[in-house]
Formats: sequence, structure tokens, C-alpha cells
Amino acid sequence: DFLRALHEVQPAFGAAINTLEMYRLNGMLDCGERHRHIQEMATTLVEQVRRSERTPLLTCLLEGPSGSGKTAMAATIAIDSDFPFIKVISAENMVGHTESSKCGVIAKVFEDAYKSPFSIIILDDIERLLEYVNIGPRFSNLILQTLLVLLKKIPPKGRKLLVLGTTSMPRVLESMDLVGAFNVSLHVPVLNRADITKVLESLNVFAKQDINNAVTALDEEIPIKRLLMLVEMAAQGKSGQGAEEVYAGRSKIDIDHFYDCLHDLAS
Amino acid sequence: DFLRALHEVQPAFGAAINTLEMYRLNGMLDCGERHRHIQEMATTLVEQVRRSERTPLLTCLLEGPSGSGKTAMAATIAIDSDFPFIKVISAENMVGHTESSKCGVIAKVFEDAYKSPFSIIILDDIERLLEYVNIGPRFSNLILQTLLVLLKKIPPKGRKLLVLGTTSMPRVLESMDLVGAFNVSLHVPVLNRADITKVLESLNVFAKQDINNAVTALDEEIPIKRLLMLVEMAAQGKSGQGAEEVYAGRSKIDIDHFYDCLHDLAS
Amino acid sequence: DFLRALHEVQPAFGAAINTLEMYRLNGMLDCGERHRHIQEMATTLVEQVRRSERTPLLTCLLEGPSGSGKTAMAATIAIDSDFPFIKVISAENMVGHTESSKCGVIAKVFEDAYKSPFSIIILDDIERLLEYVNIGPRFSNLILQTLLVLLKKIPPKGRKLLVLGTTSMPRVLESMDLVGAFNVSLHVPVLNRADITKVLESLNVFAKQDINNAVTALDEEIPIKRLLMLVEMAAQGKSGQGAEEVYAGRSKIDIDHFYDCLHDLAS
Amino acid sequence: DFLRALHEVQPAFGAAINTLEMYRLNGMLDCGERHRHIQEMATTLVEQVRRSERTPLLTCLLEGPSGSGKTAMAATIAIDSDFPFIKVISAENMVGHTESSKCGVIAKVFEDAYKSPFSIIILDDIERLLEYVNIGPRFSNLILQTLLVLLKKIPPKGRKLLVLGTTSMPRVLESMDLVGAFNVSLHVPVLNRADITKVLESLNVFAKQDINNAVTALDEEIPIKRLLMLVEMAAQGKSGQGAEEVYAGRSKIDIDHFYDCLHDLAS
Amino acid sequence: DFLRALHEVQPAFGAAINTLEMYRLNGMLDCGERHRHIQEMATTLVEQVRRSERTPLLTCLLEGPSGSGKTAMAATIAIDSDFPFIKVISAENMVGHTESSKCGVIAKVFEDAYKSPFSIIILDDIERLLEYVNIGPRFSNLILQTLLVLLKKIPPKGRKLLVLGTTSMPRVLESMDLVGAFNVSLHVPVLNRADITKVLESLNVFAKQDINNAVTALDEEIPIKRLLMLVEMAAQGKSGQGAEEVYAGRSKIDIDHFYDCLHDLAS
Amino acid sequence: DFLRALHEVQPAFGAAINTLEMYRLNGMLDCGERHRHIQEMATTLVEQVRRSERTPLLTCLLEGPSGSGKTAMAATIAIDSDFPFIKVISAENMVGHTESSKCGVIAKVFEDAYKSPFSIIILDDIERLLEYVNIGPRFSNLILQTLLVLLKKIPPKGRKLLVLGTTSMPRVLESMDLVGAFNVSLHVPVLNRADITKVLESLNVFAKQDINNAVTALDEEIPIKRLLMLVEMAAQGKSGQGAEEVYAGRSKIDIDHFYDCLHDLAS
Ligand SMILES: Nc1ncnc2c1ncn2[C@@H]1O[C@H](COP(=O)(O)OP(=O)(O)OP(=O)(O)O)[C@@H](O)[C@H]1O
Ligand SMILES: Nc1ncnc2c1ncn2[C@@H]1O[C@H](COP(=O)(O)OP(=O)(O)OP(=O)(O)O)[C@@H](O)[C@H]1O
Ligand SMILES: Nc1ncnc2c1ncn2[C@@H]1O[C@H](COP(=O)(O)OP(=O)(O)OP(=O)(O)O)[C@@H](O)[C@H]1O
Ligand SMILES: Nc1ncnc2c1ncn2[C@@H]1O[C@H](COP(=O)(O)OP(=O)(O)OP(=O)(O)O)[C@@H](O)[C@H]1O
Ligand SMILES: Nc1ncnc2c1ncn2[C@@H]1O[C@H](COP(=O)(O)OP(=O)(O)OP(=O)(O)O)[C@@H](O)[C@H]1O
Ligand SMILES: Nc1ncnc2c1ncn2[C@@H]1O[C@H](COP(=O)(O)OP(=O)(O)OP(=O)(O)O)[C@@H](O)[C@H]1O
Ligand SMILES: [Mg+2]
Ligand SMILES: [Mg+2]
Ligand SMILES: [Mg+2]
Ligand SMILES: [Mg+2]
Ligand SMILES: [Mg+2]
Ligand SMILES: [Mg+2]
Repeated sequence: DFLRALHEVQPAFGAAINTLEMYRLNGMLDCGERHRHIQEMATTLVEQVRRSERTPLLTCLLEGPSGSGKTAMAATIAIDSDFPFIKVISAENMVGHTESSKCGVIAKVFEDAYKSPFSIIILDDIERLLEYVNIGPRFSNLILQTLLVLLKKIPPKGRKLLVLGTTSMPRVLESMDLVGAFNVSLHVPVLNRADITKVLESLNVFAKQDINNAVTALDEEIPIKRLLMLVEMAAQGKSGQGAEEVYAGRSKIDIDHFYDCLHDLAS
Repeated sequence: DFLRALHEVQPAFGAAINTLEMYRLNGMLDCGERHRHIQEMATTLVEQVRRSERTPLLTCLLEGPSGSGKTAMAATIAIDSDFPFIKVISAENMVGHTESSKCGVIAKVFEDAYKSPFSIIILDDIERLLEYVNIGPRFSNLILQTLLVLLKKIPPKGRKLLVLGTTSMPRVLESMDLVGAFNVSLHVPVLNRADITKVLESLNVFAKQDINNAVTALDEEIPIKRLLMLVEMAAQGKSGQGAEEVYAGRSKIDIDHFYDCLHDLAS
Repeated sequence: DFLRALHEVQPAFGAAINTLEMYRLNGMLDCGERHRHIQEMATTLVEQVRRSERTPLLTCLLEGPSGSGKTAMAATIAIDSDFPFIKVISAENMVGHTESSKCGVIAKVFEDAYKSPFSIIILDDIERLLEYVNIGPRFSNLILQTLLVLLKKIPPKGRKLLVLGTTSMPRVLESMDLVGAFNVSLHVPVLNRADITKVLESLNVFAKQDINNAVTALDEEIPIKRLLMLVEMAAQGKSGQGAEEVYAGRSKIDIDHFYDCLHDLAS
Repeated sequence: DFLRALHEVQPAFGAAINTLEMYRLNGMLDCGERHRHIQEMATTLVEQVRRSERTPLLTCLLEGPSGSGKTAMAATIAIDSDFPFIKVISAENMVGHTESSKCGVIAKVFEDAYKSPFSIIILDDIERLLEYVNIGPRFSNLILQTLLVLLKKIPPKGRKLLVLGTTSMPRVLESMDLVGAFNVSLHVPVLNRADITKVLESLNVFAKQDINNAVTALDEEIPIKRLLMLVEMAAQGKSGQGAEEVYAGRSKIDIDHFYDCLHDLAS
Repeated sequence: DFLRALHEVQPAFGAAINTLEMYRLNGMLDCGERHRHIQEMATTLVEQVRRSERTPLLTCLLEGPSGSGKTAMAATIAIDSDFPFIKVISAENMVGHTESSKCGVIAKVFEDAYKSPFSIIILDDIERLLEYVNIGPRFSNLILQTLLVLLKKIPPKGRKLLVLGTTSMPRVLESMDLVGAFNVSLHVPVLNRADITKVLESLNVFAKQDINNAVTALDEEIPIKRLLMLVEMAAQGKSGQGAEEVYAGRSKIDIDHFYDCLHDLAS
Repeated sequence: DFLRALHEVQPAFGAAINTLEMYRLNGMLDCGERHRHIQEMATTLVEQVRRSERTPLLTCLLEGPSGSGKTAMAATIAIDSDFPFIKVISAENMVGHTESSKCGVIAKVFEDAYKSPFSIIILDDIERLLEYVNIGPRFSNLILQTLLVLLKKIPPKGRKLLVLGTTSMPRVLESMDLVGAFNVSLHVPVLNRADITKVLESLNVFAKQDINNAVTALDEEIPIKRLLMLVEMAAQGKSGQGAEEVYAGRSKIDIDHFYDCLHDLAS
């Protein structure tokens, strides 16, 4: 059962997992049909890599708006794979590195992966790895070329590798021929009304009659990450008494205060 | 009471505060409803960071025209927070540094902040930190990427961080995806007629009947910083006798001399 | 007989061949008339280099869409030539090298080739060697100039050299005067309906009556590489039981599952 | 009396002054009402810096066409201020320096200024300091950022600083946000008919009846610097006998020869 | 007699000549009136340099489409000159050199030339020397400036220098002011019908009645280099038996096989 | 008398002059009224620098089409000045230098000049000094800024300096604000019919009746340098017998051969 799996997130294989958990600090909630289908497809890819002798390498891109849950999803796929080698390549761990030092780190992770029978590498926030900015535009061609090559390089005999990339700028990556360099590309959507309702119900922080009001107030699609932050703000309460009571189920979010928070965030 | 708090600015927690005071050399005057609302929202954010266990990181951008009071406001929020770690990252302290040395300084401040339970970092005048100039345009992508990453990096378990940014070029930062990298973005406005009246009244340097004349002469919105400089010039008097008598309340600004100063500054 | 030759791929001259085999991991299937004609022309060029005293140097470019089989074809021509010196110049083996170090490697391979009476050099994925990206566009002019010169440099007396280049960006290379730098340029096409039918028949993974359905579902031209990956995915089966039974001929691909895979890949 | 002051230029406070005198080699003549007003405003600013406790820093830009007298005027303001620390930052003294070495020199001058109770820094020909050229355009962003920061940096407690900038490219500086970085911006104009007449009268090198002819021949506005060069050329005389007799008042410039010089210079 | 001279190419003055011969591996055939006129003009220039005391330096550019025979012609002019110093500056011998190292090599060749009473320097394929590529466009300005200066620098007293440049991109060189830097500029054309007929007759590889067929099949102008390669391919024969019989005059090229080769090359 | 002076060019003050003579290898012929006027104006400037105490620095630009005689004219002015310090700054003597090393050389020449009471510096072919190329365009901003500053820097007390610049790209220099940096700018024209006639008469290499034919054949304006080269070529004679007889006055140029040379040069 997919939903159960989503909630049963728990440390399993030591240190690596602890770090991976960082990427889904707010847990994995049921975000509706579309999120579920992505995770199922990803599971199929994991299986193909595990079993097929003709597929030493599979590469899959998760793309979608900022905050739509790409990184948390990639982390979840990796954790659930049971693969012995899992590594996240993220700009966070390379602040201040030169381009070529970043390339070195990236190449090293792939080389390490080639030594394990089954590996998953997460290329998180590829535009950030590429030091991309839309003015110019500028980016590190050194890193781009490294990724373009490594995404196609066949691991040595007997080694299997699944690469999961995430990006919120698929069109930028497209223009760099990076999207086509992945075997599969999956779109992670923001939440629609139905999805939002599901998430708010499972959070259980609104009085029943207020859920609909809250959804209506949102009036638009919203990424899961932003929705969770909005709820957190509202849960602090008007007088800033803190959210503990709400999350403990002992009180509910005041819907008017929720409207205020929504208004301030939107401005 | 907000107004009282504004005026009660006084050194409180040692050296750090002394430095922070530098950023509001002319004190904090009541600049009207809109300024007050911003400061209240900022206070709420401080409280969320202090209390919420699910909010290890909050980031807030103060944007508005040159001289509208952003830096003084950020300094005031930080001083009022009582947080044990407060640091300003400003281009002033990095004159002549290379891009990568600036990145080093910035990263170091964040690392230091991660060691304190509650921290505030002020990124002052972000366009200047980025060495931005509109011709080209040019800027340091190295520093930009460092900020983009650090603004999203979750502090280690148990650490809380509030980042306050200031800028007078929100559209430039927007085009660099820097505005979206902040959780909240607040607009600090220039003063309108009502605000100016309030400020001039509280300064008490004009004869009562002249306040209205002065406001009318200004005829436009004006940033608080520029208004205070104009008053200072006018207070020197025609013959340059100095402003002491005026500020001491023993004499008033000659309204005709004020008109002259206004005219010269405008040319 | 050409077809037989295609299937009789087997290690022959030691280590070099083992490496070359890597480039046609999925074997060489009969891909129809057009693929065959290219391979015949290539054979003629090999013979001219081998025999003509007036042709110390011949250069031939294989260009065609991504996955159309260029690299596998170049590897096959080289293996079949029996030439004592065969070397692939590929970005894969130069990850992280500087431009000038790449130039050094390339020049070294040519110098080594000049020492053998008969040599073949494969310049694989020339756009990748050039570190090309369409934004800017950017590429290594150092490497480009090196290629432009080496493609025209006559080997020393008594030495014969055939250079085979591959690219999926012929128009980019054209704009760099690189296409004209080759003596001959051959287009490697994607598979059409007839070609696809032939490939699927020879793979023998569909029930006879399903081949036509599969071809119809594809509805478009498809590169051989992508077709083989699609078949592999479908062969895993709905419940991920693995493809062994299918390739062993003990079961066939479920045509409905094939449709699903096709749909997911296309999205 | 302003006119008298203008003519009474004479060494007063040692070496620094001697160097400053270099910038007004041809003395200070009465150039009319507009020049006088600028110098009066500048004097007011000097007084505000000297007296106001709330004005530790004032910055003023003198902008106007090439040769209109900006540098000579800035030097005169500085000399007349009696301030103990006066320094000119000029590209002339940094020929061949690297960008970063120039930044070092600039920063050093400001640091030295911060040690004196009252200081004046002249940033002469800012476009030249910035190594600006209109093709590209190109300029040193390193130096620009240094100026942008230093123009806003408040001197330490008890120190007062007046910065005088000069430029003949205000629009260029505007596009770099450098004009707005100054508190005050004053326009130094070229001479009009009335101004020219005044200057020629005070020079006393034409026969009375020829002054009007000369002014009419000029027919346009002319910068003071160019007018003085033209007079010098004409004073040499047709046969190149030298200008001594003319300046000594023993002979007058031949108006026809003046016409010739004017014509040659204009071509 | 010009024609005889063309065919009498034979080593004459040691090593230098041996190297020069490399540039006309396929000999010098009579390519018609236009080619002859160029070679005559070049001879005149050689004589002027040899004899005129007022012409220490003459520079001549041979420009024309790729393969039209420029390099072979320059080599022939140099060989025929009998000058004691002859040197070819070519990108081939500088693969992997840095820009400034290339400049060093170029400057050294000129300095060496200045030491000989009569010298010829061939600047072969100037666009390649300049590392030119049409994207950007990019090229080495360092090398360009070196050429622009050396092409105008008068040799020391008593030294005579003829510089022969070749290029297939005259318009590019024009835009760099390089064409105008040469005293004379000569256009080397591709072969027309009459020229082709002449060449094929003198090669004597077709049956008499087939020459006309071959010329008609070509249907367009063709550069001498490409024509010779096409003949070589056709001479290998359908079954790849080799061209010896044909060149030895013992058999003729099969005209149908010639048509096939032509078709494959054109595709 | 100007004409006599023109012809009386002869070594006078040692080595420096010998080098300067290099720049007018073909002597100075009477090129008509316009050339003469330029030289007269230049003489006036030399006198002003020599005599005026108020003119420590004069700068003059000679601009005109390629080959119009600018360098020869500047050399002549310098030679005729009798000034003790004369130096040519030319790209010819700095082949292969880095930008900053060129700046060093330039600055050194100016410093040396400041030590002599009267100096002339010739900045020859300024676009070449600037490494200018019209593609991009590119040039050395380092050198440009050095020139912009040095052209305005007043020599130390008691030193006099005349700077003569030459360029065939006045519009390029204009766009760099370099033209305005000179006090005077003079246009050196190509020869018109009358000028050409004068030059050909004084050369005395045509039969009297042929001068008119030659002028008519030219049909356009032509720079003096190109005219002299054309005459030299024609003087070699059809059979390349050499020009000695012609220059010695013992024979005349064959007008038909002159037409041929003209035609070949024009193609
Ligand atoms: N079903 C879900 N899928 C993904 N994330 C979920 C889900 N349920 C809850 N979350 C939470 O939502 C947040 C998603 O944020 P995440 O950083 O993964 O988004 P993102 O798309 O990677 O954002 P960005 O574009 O900034 O990189 C995480 O904190 C995660 O714990
Ligand atoms: N209510 C207020 N808010 C902000 N500043 C105030 C207020 N009252 C008085 N001030 C004074 O106004 C000035 C505001 O200047 P400040 O440097 O903060 O503006 P800024 O918007 O940061 O300017 P810049 O765009 O140049 O960075 C300070 O000197 C401060 O002491
Ligand atoms: N007749 C054939 N020709 C070429 N490849 C074939 C043929 N039959 C099967 N294949 C297989 O198809 C695949 C072709 O992939 P290959 O890497 O050669 O394509 P490519 O055009 O070089 O792709 P890319 O554009 O990504 O470089 C190989 O795995 C090869 O084993
Ligand atoms: N009233 C005056 N104001 C300014 N300069 C004067 C005045 N009277 C005479 N001069 C002379 O005019 C000249 C003005 O030249 P100055 O170099 O100051 O002009 P500038 O505007 O700085 O020129 P540039 O744009 O080239 O920097 C000086 O030589 C100065 O001695
Ligand atoms: N009359 C001729 N003139 C020139 N080349 C000839 C002639 N006759 C035969 N050839 C042969 O034709 C070939 C001409 O090639 P060459 O390299 O000189 O052409 P190119 O114009 O320099 O080519 P590219 O543009 O590639 O540099 C040579 O192999 C030469 O031996
Ligand atoms: N009256 C004259 N003025 C100038 N040059 C003359 C004159 N009479 C003869 N000459 C000759 O004409 C030639 C002029 O060439 P010069 O190099 O001075 O031209 P230029 O304009 O500097 O050319 P470029 O644009 O290539 O630098 C010299 O060889 C000089 O000897
Ligand atoms: Mg993410
Ligand atoms: Mg601020
Ligand atoms: Mg390939
Ligand atoms: Mg000035
Ligand atoms: Mg060639
Ligand atoms: Mg010249």
C-alpha cells in the first residue's frame, strides 16, 4: 500500500539515511493521485535497474515548480530502494568551492557509485549545481559538460546505477540539452484543490468546517512546501503563543488568523 | 506600545549593539502606519523562529527605495529580538576583498550562526554585496550562488536562524531568483504627506505654522533619510551659524532658507 | 554477406576490441537498407586508405539524431577493419580535464596513430568533445582549432589514417566549418516503420500478431537506441518480474504493458 | 568679496597646496554668475561638515562638459576650506596600476582621511578612475563598487569628511547609480557670451574694440579651458614671436590672427 | 615555358624544399589560364623584391575557396624563387601552443628572415593561424595584431622579404583589416569546365570518350583538390582492387563507378 | 621656403634621426597645398611649445586614410623641430608584449620626456597601439586608459612636451573619446588629380606626354604611399629588368605596362 509506505518513513540503514531524512523534514503526506503515480513509476525504474542485465544505467529527472516536493520525493525513492550506495550531490555541501572542485566532487561520487553493485545518485537542484542565473544567462559550462557526460557513461560490467535529478527550471535544462540526457522525465505538480483538501485533512489542524474555507481562501494552486509553511505560521496563533497545542490536536487554527497570514505572505 | 519602543533605543547587550546602533544614527522616528505594520510583521517572524520547532530557518526581505529606512529597520528588529547572535553582512566591511574572499566571509558568518541556538543575520544592501551594476549588467555570480544556497540551507538540529535582507533593487533581485529565495518579502515605502507631517512634528524644528508650508513645498514623497538631511541643511541657517540652537529648541528653521535648500538639492 | 557480419560480432584482437565492444552493448541488429548502405560506404573508405598510395588520410563524419546508432556503427567499422591501431577519443575519458589537457590527449592520440602503418581514430560525440552548449553558444575553441588542424594534417610518409567522427549536431559543426573539414559526411537515420518491423522481428520478443500493433503504436520514427530501451522496459513486465523469460523466448511481451511503457516514456 | 578671493590664490599650507595649485595653472578668473553660485553652495557644504554634529559625511558631485573648470573649482574649494587633510584621487597618479591596486590606493586615502578631524577628498575625473570607455561599454566594476561603498560609509565617531567628485560624463555615472550616491550634484556650465566677455576683459589681451569682435567670432558657448588655450595660441602672434608682450600688456592680440587660430582649431 | 615549369617540380635546395613538397603532394597540373596568370604575377613580385632597392618588403595574399590550390601555389612560388630563406608558418606545426607561444614562433620566423638577404615567408591558412571560428566570432587578437604589425614592418637595411598569405575566408580577413594590410591580393579560382577537361586529359585516367561524360556529370565548378580526390576514389574500382593499374595507364576508370562515387560524395 | 625644406631631408642629430628617417624611406615630395598647410600648422604648434610659458603640453592628432603620409609627416615635424628628445611609440617595437608591458613602455617614454626641457613623442598608428580590431570590437582598454591619462597629464614645471598622434581610424578613436583628448586634430588627405600630377612631375619617371595619361588612368584619389608603390612596380618594366634606368633618368616607364600594373593591383 502506497499511502502506508509514505507515512512509515523511518531510519533504516544508518548514517546515509539520517542525512536523507533531512530532505523530508516535514514528513511525506498523501498529496493526491498525481504525486502517487510519479512515485510508482520511480519504483518501476528502481526495479528495472535492480533486475535487468541490459540496463546498467537509468537516469530520471523530477521537474516541477519550486517547493512542489521534488527533493523529498527523490529522497524517499532512494530510501525505499534499499540500495547499498545512496548519495546526494547538492550545492549546499559545496558552498565556496570552485567550478573545478565541484566537478571533482561530482566525478568522485560517480566513481564511488561504480564500485557498488547497486547505486542511486541524487543530483539535487541541478540549476544550482550549474550556478545558473537568468541574467546573461550565466552558468558553469564545466559542470554542465561533466553532467552531460556522466549521465551517459555506462558503469563498469556488473554495476548498476540509477540517477535521480531534480530541477525547478526544466526549460533552462532543456536549452542545455540536459533534459534529453535523461532517459525519463517526470513532472511533479503543485497541489490543486483536491490535493490541498487531502493534505489539510490529514494534518488535522483546522476545525472540520474550516477546511473548506481555508481551501477556498487559497483560491489557487500551491506547492506543498509553501502550504506547510503557511499552516505553520497560522498555527503560531495571533498572540504568538506557539503551535504546540495545535499540532498536539488540543486546539485548532483560528481561520481569521489564517486569512491574515495568507494576506501578509501574498503581499 | 510601538511608538515608545521606537524612541527608547538604547545600548543593551554590549559591543554588537554598539555596532548595530551605527545603522540608525538619526534614531527611530514614528514614520506612520505603513512603517509600523512592517515592524509588527517582523516581530511575528522573530517569535515564530524563537518558538516553532518546525521552523529552523526563516528568511525575510526588506525592499524599498533608497533611503526609505530599510537598514535602520533591520537593525532595530535585530536589536529588539534579544537573540544571542546578531551579525550584519555588509559590503562596507569588505572593500577591496575578492569575490571569493567575500564568499568566505559570508559562509563563515552563517557557520558561526549555526553554532548559536538563536541567530539573526542581516544581509545589508544585497545589490552591493553582489557588486551589481546595471551596465552589462554585471555582478558576482559567485556571491549570488552563495546567497541562493545559504538562504535555503537548513541549520543543524536545534539551531534557529532568521535572515533579514535589505535591497533598493527588488526587480534586479527578482531577475536573479533571489526574491523568491526569501520566505517573506516586505515593502518599505517612502514617506507620504501624512508621514512627513508626523516626522516634522516630532522633530519640532519648525514653527507650528511652517510645518504645513514645509510639507507643501516638498510636494512629493520623500525617503526618511533624505528628509532628515534636508532638515539638517536648513537647520544650519543662512549664515551657517550651525544647527545647535534649532535642535535645542531655542530657535526654529527659517522657512525661506528651507525653500532655498530644497531648491538647491533638487537641481 | 553483410547481415551475417553484423551478427558475428566477437572479440578478435585483444584489449582494444574489448573496449570497442562497450560501444555496441546491445549488439548490431539489421536496421534496414539505409544503415546497410552507410556501412558499405565506410568499408570502401577503409579499403581506399589501406590500398591507395595517394590517400594517406581520409576523414568521414557520421551524423544523425541522438541514439541513431552512430557510435556503435563507428566501433563496428573500426573492429571490422583489422587495422593495428584503433583508438576512441571520447569526452567520457576526459571528465574534469582542462581544455588544454584535452587537447594534449587528442594530439597524443594522433601522434601515436602516425607511428602505425594503418590507423583508425574515432572522434566520438564531437559536440561533447568541444564542450558545446547552445546557450551563448559556448564551446572550447582550443579543442575546435585542434580538431580543424588535425583533420587536415597529412600523416608522415608511409602512414595511413582514417578518422571517423560522430555527432548529433551536424548544423552546429557546420557553423564551425567542421563538417567541411571532413572528406565525406554520412547521415545515420532513425528507424522508419519498415526498419522497426525488421528489428522487432529479429528480437523475437513479441507474439507474431503483436509486432504490427507495436509498430503502429510507435506511430513515428524512433532511434534504435530508444527502441531497444523501450523494449527492455516492457520486457520487465507489469509486476517487475524481470525480462529473462522474454529474452529466453519462453514468454512474450504483454502488448498492453508495452502501450503503458510507451505512454509513460512519451509524457 | 568673491572676485577678490578668486584672484588672491596663493600658496598657504605647505606641500599639499602646492600640488593642488597644479590643478588651476591658469588661475581663477571671474566666469560669471553661474560659476559663482556653485562656489557659494560648495562653501555652505564645507561649513555644514565643519559644524554639524549630525553630518559626519557629505558628498558632492561637480559635473559639466570637458574643460568647464570642474577640477580647478574642486581644488579651489579644498584650498579655501582650511581643512587639515586634503587629498586628490586622480588617474594621473595611478598610470599602469592594476584595478585592485587602484582600489587599494583609493581605500587607503579614505582610511587616512578617517584619522583627521576634518578631511576633503577630491575624486577627480571619475570616469577615468573607472577606466570607462563607451565601447562595450567597459569599466572597472571593482573600482566602481569601491566608490559606491566608500561614498556611503560613515566615518568613525568625531571624524568629518567632505567628498568632491568631478566628471564630464554625468549620464554614464547616472547609469551606474553613482550620481545618486552623492548627496548633492552641481552642474558646472560652459561659458556663454556674457561670461566670455567678462573673461576676455579681465585678461586684457585684446584692444577694447576687438573684444566684441572676438566674442562674436566665437559664436558659441566655449569651456573656460579651451578659451584660455585659444587666447594663448593667438597671443603667440602670426610670426610666432611669443606671447610675452601681450600678457605684459605692451601689445594686443591681432584680431585677424585670432580669427585664423579659431578657424584652424575648429577644423 | 610555364607549363613545363609546372611539371618539372623536383627537389632542389635541400631540406626546406622537401618540406615544401609536402604542400603539393599531388603535383602541379595545368589548371588553365586563370591559375597561370596568378603564377605569372607572383613571379613578377618575386623579381621586384629581388631587384628593386626601394622595395624591401612586398606582401601578397592568395585567397580562394577551400581546396582551390592556394597552398600548393604558394609553395611552388617559393620553391621557384631560389631565395635562400623560405619558411612556412602553419597552424599544423603549432597544435596545442598557447596564443602567445604562437606569436613567439611567428615573430621568430620574421626575425630569422630579416637576417637573410632574400626571404619568403608563407602564412598558410591565416584563419587557422588566427584560431578563427564564425561563432561569436572568436579568434586570437594577439595573433592578429602580431600579423598586422609584421606585415607592415620594414626589414632592416639591405634585407628583402616577400610574404605570401593564403586564406579561404577573405571576407573574414577583410573585416579584420588584414586584406588591406597586404600590398597585393590575388583570387585563386575553382576549376570551370574548360579547366576540368584540361586536368582530366593530362591525368589520362579516363577513356577518351569518357572525359566529356565525366565533365558533364560534374556539372559544376569544383576545386582542384576535390577533383583529384574524386578521381582517386573512382580509380580504386568497384571491387576495391586499387588504383595502380589506372595510374600506370594499363586500365581506365569505369565511368559508371565514377558516377557512383560522385553521387556518394555529393550526398 | 617650405618646398626646399621638404627636399632637404638629411641626417642631423645622430641616432634618433636615423631611426626617424626610416619612416620616410621614399623621401618627402611636394604633395600640394593641403599637405603643406598641415605642415605649417604643425610648425606653429612646435613654436608655441618652444616659447609659451603657459603651454607645457600640446597634443596634435594627424588623421587620414591608410598611406596618406601621416607617419612620414609626423617624423618630418619632429626632425625639423630640433628638440633634444624625440621618441616614436609604435606597435612595431612591441610585438608580442603583453598589454601591461606595452603600458609600461609607453609610460616610460613619457617619464623620460618629462626629464628633457623640450620633447616630442610620436604615438604612431594609435589603433595598432590599442590592438584594435573591428570585430567585437576589441582593443586594449588598459592601453587606451593609459593614453587618455598621459595625453592630459601636465609635465613638471619647466618641461615642455608636444605629442603627435597618427591614425587612419579617426572615427574609432572618436568613439573612445581619444580624438577629444587631443588639443588639435588635423586631416591628412589622399592625393587629388592636381596633387598626383605634381608628384609624378617631380618624380620624372614618365615621358612628358604620358603624365596626363597616367593621371587619367588613375581616375580616383590615391594615397601617396600607394602611388609610389605603383610607380615602383611599373618602373621594373615588363621583362623585370629593374627600375634603375628609370630612376636614373635614362629611360621612362612604358605607359602600357603602367596600365597593366594598375589593373592587376586594382583587381
Ligand atoms: N508527498 C509529499 N511529497 C513531497 N514532499 C512532501 C510530501 N508530503 C510532505 N512533503 C514535505 O514537503 C516539503 C517538500 O519540499 P521539497 O524541498 O522536497 O520541495 P522541492 O520541490 O524540492 O523544493 P525546491 O524547488 O525549493 O527544491 C518537504 O518538507 C516534505 O517533507
Ligand atoms: N522609523 C524609521 N525607520 C527607519 N529609519 C528611520 C526611522 N526614523 C528615523 N530613521 C532614520 O532614517 C535613516 C534611514 O536610513 P537607512 O540607511 O536605514 O535607509 P536605507 O533604506 O537603508 O537606505 P539605503 O537605500 O541607502 O540603504 C536612518 O538614519 C535612521 O536613523
Ligand atoms: N545496426 C545497428 N547500428 C547501430 N546500433 C545498433 C544497431 N543494432 C543495434 N544497435 C544498438 O543500438 C545502440 C545504438 O546506440 P549508439 O550509442 O551507437 O547511438 P548514438 O547515435 O551514438 O547515440 P548518441 O547520439 O547518444 O551518441 C547500441 O547499443 C547498439 O548496440
Ligand atoms: N573660475 C574658474 N573656474 C574654473 N577654472 C578656471 C576659472 N578661471 C580660470 N580657470 C582655469 O580654467 C582651467 C579649467 O580647467 P579644468 O581642468 O579645471 O577643467 P575641467 O572641467 O576639470 O576639465 P576636464 O573636463 O578636462 O577635466 C584651469 O586651467 C583653470 O586655471
Ligand atoms: N596547378 C595547381 N595548382 C594548385 N594545386 C594543384 C595544381 N595542380 C595540382 N594541384 C594539387 O591540388 C592540391 C591543391 O591543394 P591545396 O592544399 O594547395 O589547396 P588549398 O586551396 O590550399 O586548400 P585549403 O583551402 O584546404 O587550404 C594539391 O594537392 C596540389 O598538389
Ligand atoms: N609630402 C609627403 N608627405 C608624406 N609622405 C610622403 C610625402 N612625400 C613622399 N612621401 C612618402 O610617402 C610615404 C607615406 O607613407 P606613411 O607610412 O607616412 O603613410 P601613413 O599615412 O602613415 O600610412 P599608414 O596609414 O599605413 O600608417 C612615405 O614612404 C614617404 O616617404
Ligand atoms: Mg529541492
Ligand atoms: Mg540601507
Ligand atoms: Mg554516440
Ligand atoms: Mg578635470
Ligand atoms: Mg591551403
Ligand atoms: Mg603610418
